[in-house]
Amino acid sequence: MQDKRYLMIPGPTPVPPKVVAAMTTPMFGHRTQEFQNLHKDIVTKLQKVFQTKNDIFVLTSSGTGGMETAVANTVSPGDKVLTLVGGKFGERWSELAKAYGAELIEENFEWGTPVNPQIVKDRLAANPDIKVVFATQNETSTGVTNDIESIGKIVADTPALLVVDGVSGVGGIEIKVDEWHVDILTTGSQKSLMLPPGLAVQSVSDKAWQVIENNKSPRYYFDLVKARKSLGKWNTAYTPAVSLFVGLNTSLDMMLEEGLDNVYARHKLLRDAARAAIKALGLKLMTDDNCASPVITSVCAPEGIGADDIRKVLTNEFGITFAGGQAQLKNKIFRVAHMGFADKMDVLIAISGLEMALTRVGYPVELGAGVKAAQQVFLGVQK
Amino acid sequence: MQDKRYLMIPGPTPVPPKVVAAMTTPMFGHRTQEFQNLHKDIVTKLQKVFQTKNDIFVLTSSGTGGMETAVANTVSPGDKVLTLVGGKFGERWSELAKAYGAELIEENFEWGTPVNPQIVKDRLAANPDIKVVFATQNETSTGVTNDIESIGKIVADTPALLVVDGVSGVGGIEIKVDEWHVDILTTGSQKSLMLPPGLAVQSVSDKAWQVIENNKSPRYYFDLVKARKSLGKWNTAYTPAVSLFVGLNTSLDMMLEEGLDNVYARHKLLRDAARAAIKALGLKLMTDDNCASPVITSVCAPEGIGADDIRKVLTNEFGITFAGGQAQLKNKIFRVAHMGFADKMDVLIAISGLEMALTRVGYPVELGAGVKAAQQVFLGVQK
Repeated sequence: MQDKRYLMIPGPTPVPPKVVAAMTTPMFGHRTQEFQNLHKDIVTKLQKVFQTKNDIFVLTSSGTGGMETAVANTVSPGDKVLTLVGGKFGERWSELAKAYGAELIEENFEWGTPVNPQIVKDRLAANPDIKVVFATQNETSTGVTNDIESIGKIVADTPALLVVDGVSGVGGIEIKVDEWHVDILTTGSQKSLMLPPGLAVQSVSDKAWQVIENNKSPRYYFDLVKARKSLGKWNTAYTPAVSLFVGLNTSLDMMLEEGLDNVYARHKLLRDAARAAIKALGLKLMTDDNCASPVITSVCAPEGIGADDIRKVLTNEFGITFAGGQAQLKNKIFRVAHMGFADKMDVLIAISGLEMALTRVGYPVELGAGVKAAQQVFLGVQK
Repeated sequence: MQDKRYLMIPGPTPVPPKVVAAMTTPMFGHRTQEFQNLHKDIVTKLQKVFQTKNDIFVLTSSGTGGMETAVANTVSPGDKVLTLVGGKFGERWSELAKAYGAELIEENFEWGTPVNPQIVKDRLAANPDIKVVFATQNETSTGVTNDIESIGKIVADTPALLVVDGVSGVGGIEIKVDEWHVDILTTGSQKSLMLPPGLAVQSVSDKAWQVIENNKSPRYYFDLVKARKSLGKWNTAYTPAVSLFVGLNTSLDMMLEEGLDNVYARHKLLRDAARAAIKALGLKLMTDDNCASPVITSVCAPEGIGADDIRKVLTNEFGITFAGGQAQLKNKIFRVAHMGFADKMDVLIAISGLEMALTRVGYPVELGAGVKAAQQVFLGVQK
């Protein structure tokens, strides 16, 4: 059936009808009081989500553009930086740092496991000249959420900046920018913030500004110094994606009306239900409970069955899209996002579809067993 | 009255209802056959608008991001480049070239006048090591359209690349990328292409690829080599602004159904009507007829009257937004866009509003005289 589809990938994520409607607002100029008021509203609301008093910039680009903004503004050629890599998005920090001529220390953690803060501490102690530490809040490629609080405490004791990729996490997983000493937090619109792709959002601490102001890498569109000048009048340096700004204001309202604590609790509940269901079906989860992402659940395909074959059945027969594995995880895992505009019944759709798809590909499971486990989590009843 | 408003600035421009509706399509993944088909359709249609067989890239950024893409991919530190400057957007090329460490030759033309191709020829002859020439198709800040055909013929006889900012012109003013030897043409979504801001579009010639492949400037998000690799599979290197892509496909359909020749003729007709009206009201146009932009008409405010006072009345009393002057033209001129989703009655709204606003600010005109002059142009009758 046309349009009866269930998008369960880690971005772009489904956009709530109210946000879609908001984005049909007739176009208006970006050098107007109307835009400035909107911009101020958005920044004020984002500061609540980021738990920060720092300046926040809304950039017209995808999440990677936001990551490049962080690198281009803090890394001068030859600077020593530390990247904490446990998946594809950690690798992106390394690629960006190399593109900007950094002297790179790359610390790898096994895919599916979190960053070990003690190792960060050791590397910083051995290399007191590290200028920036690049971390990932939620490693979407594996479904691991890292302990930014602990990393932040360690980095704060050094002259280094902590830059965090919060692209898939912010809005679904709590992050306390000021309390946890995150100097730059960058995120994207099309994940937990419930918007189409096209915006990146970034907070910048006073400690980061010291570095940014002295940075020597070429940049123009992504220049934060210029962006700060414009932000002073609630303008943007270049033409912003006006319709996405309007949508963002509405999606932030939705989050604040639900209450951020409730938003974060909802994502954890969806995670717990999804994981309980996967376990009940006898499948292996990619991550341990202690680092499992509240916004995405990664599942290993059963031995001898291609994850992408399962995904194909889900799409073709049931209109459900899961994400596949990336790089070395291709065809080995599938990933179910419960990110942003997602609630209980979405998990039940995912699990009941998965049960049928597993049966189709020749891995029979007890139909309904996963659904039951998820239902028990939602009802708060014992197994 | 709420929402009864007339947006007549040179971007963002009004978005047609059909395009707004298209952008409410439920979100879908960008690594799908559905997206790849859409992407291929868009590129094929853009090649018709650009009149080129070159690769075309749709980037998620504003127009300035597209301009930076052109610079970051063609200018290595120390390269000699020539910028042709006759307004604010020409200056942007100089700023970008400087940001990337170019040895800059800036050739200035009086604001309101076009580039003199003979001077381009002379500069290239005197500096055979110029690597890139940066030009502006339509200088939005003054309302001048430059003779890209003549500039293209000159640059094609040299090893230099011709990079053209077509941000406000492409889709409203004809440009023949292949025939006129434009190596990189870059444009934005929110002008003549009738979309919200958030996309930049860029064509790249074989001659440009030779330079790009050997370029040494740092870049990642704007890296065209990586973009070309993804384009080979109709993917984008990073998450694209999916909803804007859907809208772009629809706005391109609208343009192709109208017929590109008709689109260009419509813009010229709107220009001719607007200019006839302005002359009939006794106001001074910023540009001569031979270089007057088909998409925007710049008008000098009467002696002793602030252009911004006229604009204020237009906005407050009649819901009409004109653009003001920029930099040294601030409060000296106002600019009326007839760009993209604009037709005859829009010019009549602009002119009749202007007549009333002039009267309000103490510069009485014969009410209806400008309207009559525009009507005569539309009806093809003699004055």
